[in-house]
Amino acid sequence: GEKVEIFKYIFMKWTLCFLVGVMGGLVGFFINLAVENVAGTKFVITSNLMLDRKFMHAFGSFAAINLGLTLFSAIITAFISPAAAGSGIPEVKAYLNGVDAPGIFSVRTLVVKILGNISVVSASLYVGKAGPMVHTVSCIAALLSQGGSKKYRLTWRWLRFFKNDRDRRDLITCGSAAGLAAAFRAPVGGVLFALEEMASWWRSALLWRTFFTTAVVAVILRGLIDVCNSGKCGLFGKGGLIMFDVTSTNTSYHVADVPIVLLLGFIGGLLGSLYNSLLDKTLRVYNYINNKGRAQKIILACTICVVTTFLLFGLPWVSKCKPCPADASEACPTIGRSGNYKNKNTDAEFQPTSLLIFFVTNYFLGILSYGIAAPTGLFVPIILTGASYGRFIGRLSGSRTSLNHGLFAVLGAASFLGGTMRMTVSLCVVLLEITNNLLLLPLVMLVLLVSKTVADMFNNNIYDIIMKLKGFPYLEAHAEPYMRQLTVSDVVKGPLQSFDGIEKVQNIVHVLKTTGHNGFPVIDGPPFSDYRAWFGLILREHILVLLRKKNFLSVPQPTGTDAFKQLSSDDFAKKGSGKADKIEDIEITEEEMEMFIDLHPFTNASPYTAGETMSLAKALLMFREAGLRHLLVVPKDSGLKGKPCSLCIALRVPLTVHVAAVTYAEAACRGNSN
Amino acid sequence: GEKVEIFKYIFMKWTLCFLVGVMGGLVGFFINLAVENVAGTKFVITSNLMLDRKFMHAFGSFAAINLGLTLFSAIITAFISPAAAGSGIPEVKAYLNGVDAPGIFSVRTLVVKILGNISVVSASLYVGKAGPMVHTVSCIAALLSQGGSKKYRLTWRWLRFFKNDRDRRDLITCGSAAGLAAAFRAPVGGVLFALEEMASWWRSALLWRTFFTTAVVAVILRGLIDVCNSGKCGLFGKGGLIMFDVTSTNTSYHVADVPIVLLLGFIGGLLGSLYNSLLDKTLRVYNYINNKGRAQKIILACTICVVTTFLLFGLPWVSKCKPCPADASEACPTIGRSGNYKNKNTDAEFQPTSLLIFFVTNYFLGILSYGIAAPTGLFVPIILTGASYGRFIGRLSGSRTSLNHGLFAVLGAASFLGGTMRMTVSLCVVLLEITNNLLLLPLVMLVLLVSKTVADMFNNNIYDIIMKLKGFPYLEAHAEPYMRQLTVSDVVKGPLQSFDGIEKVQNIVHVLKTTGHNGFPVIDGPPFSDYRAWFGLILREHILVLLRKKNFLSVPQPTGTDAFKQLSSDDFAKKGSGKADKIEDIEITEEEMEMFIDLHPFTNASPYTAGETMSLAKALLMFREAGLRHLLVVPKDSGLKGKPCSLCIALRVPLTVHVAAVTYAEAACRGNSN
Repeated sequence: GEKVEIFKYIFMKWTLCFLVGVMGGLVGFFINLAVENVAGTKFVITSNLMLDRKFMHAFGSFAAINLGLTLFSAIITAFISPAAAGSGIPEVKAYLNGVDAPGIFSVRTLVVKILGNISVVSASLYVGKAGPMVHTVSCIAALLSQGGSKKYRLTWRWLRFFKNDRDRRDLITCGSAAGLAAAFRAPVGGVLFALEEMASWWRSALLWRTFFTTAVVAVILRGLIDVCNSGKCGLFGKGGLIMFDVTSTNTSYHVADVPIVLLLGFIGGLLGSLYNSLLDKTLRVYNYINNKGRAQKIILACTICVVTTFLLFGLPWVSKCKPCPADASEACPTIGRSGNYKNKNTDAEFQPTSLLIFFVTNYFLGILSYGIAAPTGLFVPIILTGASYGRFIGRLSGSRTSLNHGLFAVLGAASFLGGTMRMTVSLCVVLLEITNNLLLLPLVMLVLLVSKTVADMFNNNIYDIIMKLKGFPYLEAHAEPYMRQLTVSDVVKGPLQSFDGIEKVQNIVHVLKTTGHNGFPVIDGPPFSDYRAWFGLILREHILVLLRKKNFLSVPQPTGTDAFKQLSSDDFAKKGSGKADKIEDIEITEEEMEMFIDLHPFTNASPYTAGETMSLAKALLMFREAGLRHLLVVPKDSGLKGKPCSLCIALRVPLTVHVAAVTYAEAACRGNSN
Repeated sequence: GEKVEIFKYIFMKWTLCFLVGVMGGLVGFFINLAVENVAGTKFVITSNLMLDRKFMHAFGSFAAINLGLTLFSAIITAFISPAAAGSGIPEVKAYLNGVDAPGIFSVRTLVVKILGNISVVSASLYVGKAGPMVHTVSCIAALLSQGGSKKYRLTWRWLRFFKNDRDRRDLITCGSAAGLAAAFRAPVGGVLFALEEMASWWRSALLWRTFFTTAVVAVILRGLIDVCNSGKCGLFGKGGLIMFDVTSTNTSYHVADVPIVLLLGFIGGLLGSLYNSLLDKTLRVYNYINNKGRAQKIILACTICVVTTFLLFGLPWVSKCKPCPADASEACPTIGRSGNYKNKNTDAEFQPTSLLIFFVTNYFLGILSYGIAAPTGLFVPIILTGASYGRFIGRLSGSRTSLNHGLFAVLGAASFLGGTMRMTVSLCVVLLEITNNLLLLPLVMLVLLVSKTVADMFNNNIYDIIMKLKGFPYLEAHAEPYMRQLTVSDVVKGPLQSFDGIEKVQNIVHVLKTTGHNGFPVIDGPPFSDYRAWFGLILREHILVLLRKKNFLSVPQPTGTDAFKQLSSDDFAKKGSGKADKIEDIEITEEEMEMFIDLHPFTNASPYTAGETMSLAKALLMFREAGLRHLLVVPKDSGLKGKPCSLCIALRVPLTVHVAAVTYAEAACRGNSN
């Protein structure tokens, strides 16, 4: 009975979260394993040649491997799935806001994202793997929720429950949390990241389920790392994730240290907003190049690779080596030739000039590398850049503060993350989980607050900038002041097409062919009703189902519940992204054109409505809070006999501020039932 | 100009958060300081008498001090502010959901809450200070947001910006986060607690501001503790907050330890749900006693105090002492007489029987102590109970697991918290911040997930149970299945009173006197409009302002914007809780009764509306998501000429399931504009 179905549904919901967690953990681990083995092998080859003093050979093989990997990544991205380029976080964020960019959750995107990211990171480019991992796991969640991929015959019948927008959205939210959790081994940070940065609609039940997903990720990762500790994973763990090892160092601090921390936050904010604006400009140039063709895309990626390789190989020669001091407490670390080290594990570990060079290289290579045609992340370059400038400031401040320089690096990373990404609680928790030191909390909070506040004065956060460049019509949570002066009837999209409760097939086909709207009001009127009044809202995709099933009537009369006999709930299940029906694909004969459809049984008779005098700001709030795609605007005189019933639908697109971006966006969202 | 006003507003918003943080830190510190000094002095006196072997004297003074403190707390609670009794978290949670219980945010409640909690905790009763601290800081936030208290002449003119529901609600949310942060020194935990447990409406901007508030709390607390470390705070820090010191112990764990952790979670879920149901029953009995009169209230509190004192003094005699072993690595801890200690700092530190006795005492005394007429918290007794049974299970499992027994205590506390309070992420983060050990994360997550899932099968979380007992009409986030079968027109409160756009004073006064509604639809009709149609929604409190200002017209004609000349925005500012105008207090002469008011300028012409066919489930969602108090139900034939315009308002009360509770609730919320 119904109870069994409900139980099945709840069971499946948790099972899917569990699967997302397991797959997230496995994929995250696999990516790390692959990167460390590929990159590790490369470094072993290069370093062995260096030990034999074959420097040109070493450079040659280093450059060749880098170029080969970059080329592979750029080619699969350009030819197989252009949607896999970049971080993927903006796309997922836009999807969770209701913008369904084409191809972002397809199987080919998933494959290209994983392989492309492994090779581009192994090629030593200044790109990260956290963002792509968020996209990857979200993509897995999306594929699971739509019951696999029909194209590749990977479908599961028992996943049909989830073929609706809400469950898919919730599962993708869990996926994004699991992705970040897998990238940083930060389960709580992942939950907060999904809450703060990704999700536009959040319910407290989701907190609970997201938390479960990231807990599964954490357990899986721990299990796999236990396996690897017994030495079965090749070079894995020899290099490792970025880890600020400040657990051992003294992290005491006093009120006297607050000014320098504030300064760090302030500089982080300035550098961060500058980073965002430079990245914005760079991406505009890159978009221009990338749009010229696939060859140009690949050449651009290779150019960046060559520049990076030269810098990586050349810059270490700038810094002088110091001999290993005789009184060192432990043996100097070395690879085959002793005596070369740079004061490890002390505040003087790095020389100021080295730090400065490292910072500048990171800062600009990070900006230049993001926009290439490959799956590139932003987190790691930003953390590295921030850490290097934090440590640099630590060196400069000298004896004026008692803070450890490693701590300066963490705070620098925090300030730069705050200045670019503008998250607060989630970044704070992620950093705490990376450093495994809760005593840092007040300092990290302080730095994040200052850097975000400073940076917010200049521009938007980095993901919003990228979304704007991509032209996604993202719905902000806040209404602009001018929206209070407008009413919904001012922006309603018109002239509006509406259907009668029992409508001629010909009219329906004509309207569907001539408009791009995805929702239509249904109007009742004489002779079936005393007066003309709105009945409800019907979706384009549901009308298409009716047309395809050819549920036609030869005379206009109400069908009642009989209408459902020929249809199952499966017919109305949400299609996978980009797989929506098209009116052009449905063939209808001349005879059928003269027949009728009773739309009543398939119409949502309980849509969200707004009075025509509702302010635009309030309507925007409704769209955001209730997660709407259509809002029925009802005129106050809707029931008047003589007057035609002038119903309208406010679409999400007119609500966004930047009308110039909208045209592009409408093209981009063709697969979407906005 | 307007920009200056906006800047002022933003500046004030952050300043208020800062003030809430500062006051939260100070008050939290003060409460701890007071408790540790009062209770510490008591223990010093008792223990000195014990050392002189004057056991009856010792018991006498111990009992006398406890009884005196309890008596003080019960008397101020019963006579000055009954609203200060209990934890306060349910009240604050209900307020954030839109239920304004009388007196919960008054100055006298604040004072009683602080003093009463200090004395009742110092009296060694099994009650905590976390819940009262949340209420205290929320109360401070509420008072700040309404510009101080007029009654005590503590008002600030520059706080007038915040005299509206939304800003007050946001600030109280920050206050609740700051309260928890102050109680546990857990700033991130505080933010998550506010998000997960307290807030019904959450915006991402709020995350940011709450975070700022708790950061301030953390900095203030750290500064004050630095001051105290130099020994200026009497006995403070000698006893201290509950702190699980597991930083030093080995926290490694393996897959083999998972079953016992799952078992721990399972038992925690069972014990937790039993705790909730026993507390429910106990509170029903206590309510019966407490409602009989103040004397009965005070007697009940004293009875619990006497029972607790006997157990506290008597139970340690049950346990045998062991001689200090000669090979102990450090000197045995003692107070004046050597040789008496119980295997400190090893897994055998506590004997199983001691643990069992401690657990049982805690479990039942926690249940019995909560409902007395005093500010009592739930967190600490629950943590203690959970820790003791966790450690007991650790002892029982013996050598079957390699987990440290201290770790068992933490996991036991987590499972019991999960089983009673049913929070997940926030409890997890709070526990991590208390223990300062992130490696515990996966285990704590696992335990919380299991215990919450198990406990959810039996009953609701502890705060919801208390809210239900208090009769608050709390709006759940989920709609019950039957609500999908009903439409808003089925539950609309009727017969509905509405006003014409230009209405006679007499009619208005009559309607306000004879109904309890707080919102009224305004209808336009001939001769001022072509047909009768709804114009908007006006609030009772705004009508009262107009009546008080006697803005009357001798002839029915539209006034336009002239109407605002006599009124400032201050007149419409939200009154402090419990200070709303009453229609009975406004005197209107016979002559004025015959005059008119033009309601148009003061009517919200852009209210949220619902078609009469909207399902109840969807309406509930709108109430929750958009934070509504009124919803205008518009019939589809609203504009028909002949028909009377049958507008209705769906109130929040009919949406709650338990109609029996509603009558009580309406009485409780008299001060509220629901």
